[in-house]
Parts: sequence; structure tokens; C-alpha cells
Amino acid sequence: MMQIERLAEGIRRREIPALARGISLVENGGDGFEKLLSALHEDLGRAHRIGLTGPPGAGKSTLVECLIRGYRKTGKTVGVIAVDPTSPFTGGALLGDRIRMESATSDPSVFVRSMATRGAGGGLSTTTREVCDLLDAFGFERILIETVGVGQSEIAIAATADTAVLVLVPESGDGVQVMKAGIMEIADIYVVNKADRPGAERVKKEIEIMLGIRRGQAYRHVAPHHRPQLVGPQGGQPAVPVRQDDSWEPPVILTSAVKGEGIESLLDALEKHREYLERGGELERRRRERIARLTREVVDRTLRQLVWSESDAEVHLASGLERVWRGERSPYEVASEIVAAVRKEIADGA
Amino acid sequence: MMQIERLAEGIRRREIPALARGISLVENGGDGFEKLLSALHEDLGRAHRIGLTGPPGAGKSTLVECLIRGYRKTGKTVGVIAVDPTSPFTGGALLGDRIRMESATSDPSVFVRSMATRGAGGGLSTTTREVCDLLDAFGFERILIETVGVGQSEIAIAATADTAVLVLVPESGDGVQVMKAGIMEIADIYVVNKADRPGAERVKKEIEIMLGIRRGQAYRHVAPHHRPQLVGPQGGQPAVPVRQDDSWEPPVILTSAVKGEGIESLLDALEKHREYLERGGELERRRRERIARLTREVVDRTLRQLVWSESDAEVHLASGLERVWRGERSPYEVASEIVAAVRKEIADGA
Repeated sequence: MMQIERLAEGIRRREIPALARGISLVENGGDGFEKLLSALHEDLGRAHRIGLTGPPGAGKSTLVECLIRGYRKTGKTVGVIAVDPTSPFTGGALLGDRIRMESATSDPSVFVRSMATRGAGGGLSTTTREVCDLLDAFGFERILIETVGVGQSEIAIAATADTAVLVLVPESGDGVQVMKAGIMEIADIYVVNKADRPGAERVKKEIEIMLGIRRGQAYRHVAPHHRPQLVGPQGGQPAVPVRQDDSWEPPVILTSAVKGEGIESLLDALEKHREYLERGGELERRRRERIARLTREVVDRTLRQLVWSESDAEVHLASGLERVWRGERSPYEVASEIVAAVRKEIADGA
Repeated sequence: MMQIERLAEGIRRREIPALARGISLVENGGDGFEKLLSALHEDLGRAHRIGLTGPPGAGKSTLVECLIRGYRKTGKTVGVIAVDPTSPFTGGALLGDRIRMESATSDPSVFVRSMATRGAGGGLSTTTREVCDLLDAFGFERILIETVGVGQSEIAIAATADTAVLVLVPESGDGVQVMKAGIMEIADIYVVNKADRPGAERVKKEIEIMLGIRRGQAYRHVAPHHRPQLVGPQGGQPAVPVRQDDSWEPPVILTSAVKGEGIESLLDALEKHREYLERGGELERRRRERIARLTREVVDRTLRQLVWSESDAEVHLASGLERVWRGERSPYEVASEIVAAVRKEIADGA
């Protein structure tokens, strides 16, 4: 236990070796990993967590690299988690190395980590969230979570961030329509990367049409009394349009990460979204929702651990499956028997 | 209970209304849904389950449509599950309607169903697998499972099929390298659809290089004594190369679903893969593995149900979270308290 407390203290003191050990502990679900996370809970909430997702080949890693450079220019510290066994981060390649070389100073201002495992113990999104928590407790001001893919798991991971960015390319046009009802609607910011290629403006337009934010349709889904009022400084002549309902209209940003173009706009949009989240209490709401979800998942994980590692469930499963192969039982009957046995074990052990 | 038995009987008797009701029951996790699946367990194992996954806009739905037509020509019955809230199947659109119109006969030879939910109760892959089981019990000879995306969940769903097909397009070239270590390796068959567009041959080559099956590298990963022996009919002069190890070399097939090109090759590859699976005992191995996984997941699902619906866990969670907001507890401490309370409830109730 003492060891865990020392590890927590090391992370709070911004010691990179302690952080690295903590992450490995959490990734592997090692002894005391939940104690560590529990101890660091009070240190959370300072980082802006940004999730970037999109199809393979959309240039997310290069974009992440640009964002790191941008944040470093303004003196902000950045933690990066690449959640993807297929990422070029993995195996210490490319960006990881480059950044590490640049930041090989005593000031641990940039930290890049790829999630090699697919989530030990819990789901991948839970483990990602917990590694994020370590980076947050360490004190990184911005945390970038890069995931590859546009599937359900990636949606779940994006949902653990404060701000979700969907990265597309001009060639994504065909897909935009199909993606309408899926991952598209969870993004706070859209990026069309590789925008120097033909079709970028068209995809931007398609996304905007999908979002219903093209000129003239901007307030289609907003009730009349929620429409923006034009008010001047003294309440007289209109000066700046102010959205009274303060809702967020996801921007669509064109970038060329390779050429470093559009990065300022993206950084700007990210700050604007953070301000929006903080202003309206949305940040607090999202964080509470996330903590509630995390707590449920920790309960489920603990129970799975209890059943599959600390009870005779595996033994019952093995003999039960033999009966399934012989046609004497269905998998559901075996599952019922296992649950009954586990309940009995708990009752007997209590 | 009687009602569930009648439903199972209806499905066995190939009554479409019974099938539809069964699917809804399973999707919603309604009363007795596991009893239904348990009752139908002995009727499983006749269908060839084919999973098709790939990025949005790859033309999977059109490809599925082509496969249905192909199977119908040879008199085979086909069930289709579109696992995707974003699929054009959803909302009774496109393919769903077209096919339904064609097959509006007394012979229920084609059935198309989109999975509207994201998996009630269990994970999406478990629910998909269970809906598949209903189609199998009903007697469909081929079951096509269409998922959109190339993420972890889609890998999990593909893993519930006998044969996994990854559908790419010529524009996927950029992504192939990045996808190397991920979903690429789980596919049994690769399709480059929209192959009339430029770049199709290049992507095919890239996939083949990745798989190490380009000419000259074909047996790179095969130990010398496993290499194919050339044996003649009487053991004399070599006639047909026979792979002694009988391993499967995933083919890369060019198609244009819109033009109906390459479909015969795909159908042929699917049959070949099925034969391969049956010949070497691989089918049995995959099915047993799937049943073992399913049984574990049913246990986990039952326990989650037990905890979150039949115990006071929700009450403990609500008051625990209040303490988290007040800074008195970490989410992990609350989770521990909930687990302890659940254990006590089980012990008291036993």
C-alpha cells in the first residue's frame, strides 16, 4: 500500500518514471491500480481532454503532432494517448520518437503514450479514461486522445473526452451521408484534413448540411424565443450577435497537417469549445456523467474479477461446456448454473 | 413459459412473424429471451455466417444485395443483419424494401433485419450473435452480417461469424498500411469494391504484400516441412499442388457491386472458405470458441442485471456519487461500497 502512495506522490510531483509506472500498472490491471486512481481522484479536473477520431489514413497522428507544437508555443504541457494497436506511435515509431527527442529536457512538458493493450480487465474505454486520469493528475494542461476508426468503441472513447474531434479527408464524401446518424453526431468539432486535395470544400459543405448549419438553416432546430438577439453595449443599437441559448454549433475546419495549415483555426476552435463548456456548466455536467459511468464500470469490472478469478466459475464453465458439446445443455443453462454457483459461494463466504 | 415454447416452435416451423417477434424480444432483452435462445440452441449450426465490415461508403450494402441475388439463383435462403444505426437498411429504406418486395412470396427465403439498438443488456456483439442464432435456428442457409466501421466493436462482431470479409475501396490505399496490425489480420477474405475506379490493383497489391502472399513470399511464414508437396495421383509425377498444412490464404477479390462484377468470384471464395473450415475442423473449433465466449458473456450479463436491476446498487450509487461531488469519496471507494453491499444482499438473500 505504501508503495502505491509513493507512486501517487511521484505522479503529483511530476516525475515521469512514476507516471510511466503508474500507466503500466493501470493498463495491466496490476495490484493496487484502483488504489492509485482512487488516491489521485482529488487531483483531477484541470486538463482539457480532447479526443480525435476518424478513419485510418486521415492523418490524425500528423495533426496531433501539429497540435502539440501549437500548444508548446504557448507554453502549455501536453499528454498524448494513442489508443490503437495500429497507430504509428506504437513501437516507439515516428511521432513518439521525434517528440521525445525534442522534449528530452528536465521539464516534462510533452508525454506520448500508446495504449498497447486492448484494455485489461475493463473495457478499452474505461482503461483509456483511467490512463487519462493519470495524465490529468500529473498536471498536463491538454490531453490528446487519438483513436483510429469510426466504430462503436471509438465513439465510447470519444465520449470520455471533454471535446470530441472527428477527422475526415476530402475522400470521405461518400461516407458522410452514411455516417449521418452514427459517430457524426457526437463530434464537437469537425476537421477535413488533407484539405489541399480536391473535394475538401464539398465535404465541408456536406457536413454542414448534415448539421443543418448552412446559411439560412442555421437556427432551423432552435425554437423562436431561443433565436439570437442582437443587443448593443447599452442595449441600444445591435452590435454583436449574441446567442442567448448559448448552444454550440460544431465548426467544420479545413486543415493540411502536413503543411501545417489550418492548425491555428483548430487550436482556436478547441479553446472556444473549452470556454463554452466552462461557461454554461456543460463541462461539469459532462464530467459528472463520466464519473457516474466510470463508477458503474468499476463495479462491473470488480464483479467480473470476483467471478472469473476468485470463484470456481472457470471450473464450472469447463465442465459445463463439455455438457454443451455433448448436447446435454445449452450455453444459457450453463450460464445459469455458473451464476447460481457464484451466488452460493458468495453466500457461504460471507 | 408456454409462450416462449410456442415462439421457438414457430421459428422452427419457419414462420416469419415468430422470427420477427423473437428478434425483437432478444434485441430488447425482454422477458424470457434467454429461454428462447436456450430452447433453440439444439437447432443451430447449419447456417454459414458471413460477416462483412469496412469503412463507411465502401458499398457494403450494395455488395450484400449482390450476394443475396447470387445465393437466390442457386436456391439458397439468406438472412441479413445490418448492425449499424447508420445503415441504409435502417428505417426500412433501400435494400430492405427492395428485397422485401422481391421476396413477398409464401416462401420466406430472404429476410433482412437491421439492428436498431446498440445492444440492450449485453454488448452489441453478443446481441448480434444471438439474433444470428435465431436466423440460424429458422433455417437460413447463409447469414450475412453487415457492420459499418473498422473499429474494435466491428472486429468483435466479425469474430462472431464463420467467415470475416473486409470490404475496402481503391481509395483505402492510404489506410492499408495503418490498418496493418488491426482489423486487417482478422479477415478471411478481402474485397476491393468499386474496383472500376483507379487504384484498385494497387490496393490489392498492398493488401497482398501486407499478407505476405505475393509471389515468392507465399510461404515465408510456413516452416519448411509444412510447405506444399507436389504429389501425383499415384504418388508419382506431381500433378496438383496440395497444401499439406491446409492453411487458408486470404484471397483479395476485386468487385464492382454496382455493376455486378466480381460477385461470382466472391461467392466462390465464400464457398471455398466454408469448405476449408469444415474440412480441417476449423469450423468446429471456431464455433466452440464462440460458444465459450457467449457463455462467459451471458454470465456477465446476468450478474450485471442482478446488480443493477435486482439489488439496491442504484440507490447506493446515487448517494455515493453525491459524496464524490462533495469531495468525500473517490469513484473507486464508492464502487467498493456498492460491491460490498451487493455481496451482503446476496448473502442475506441466499
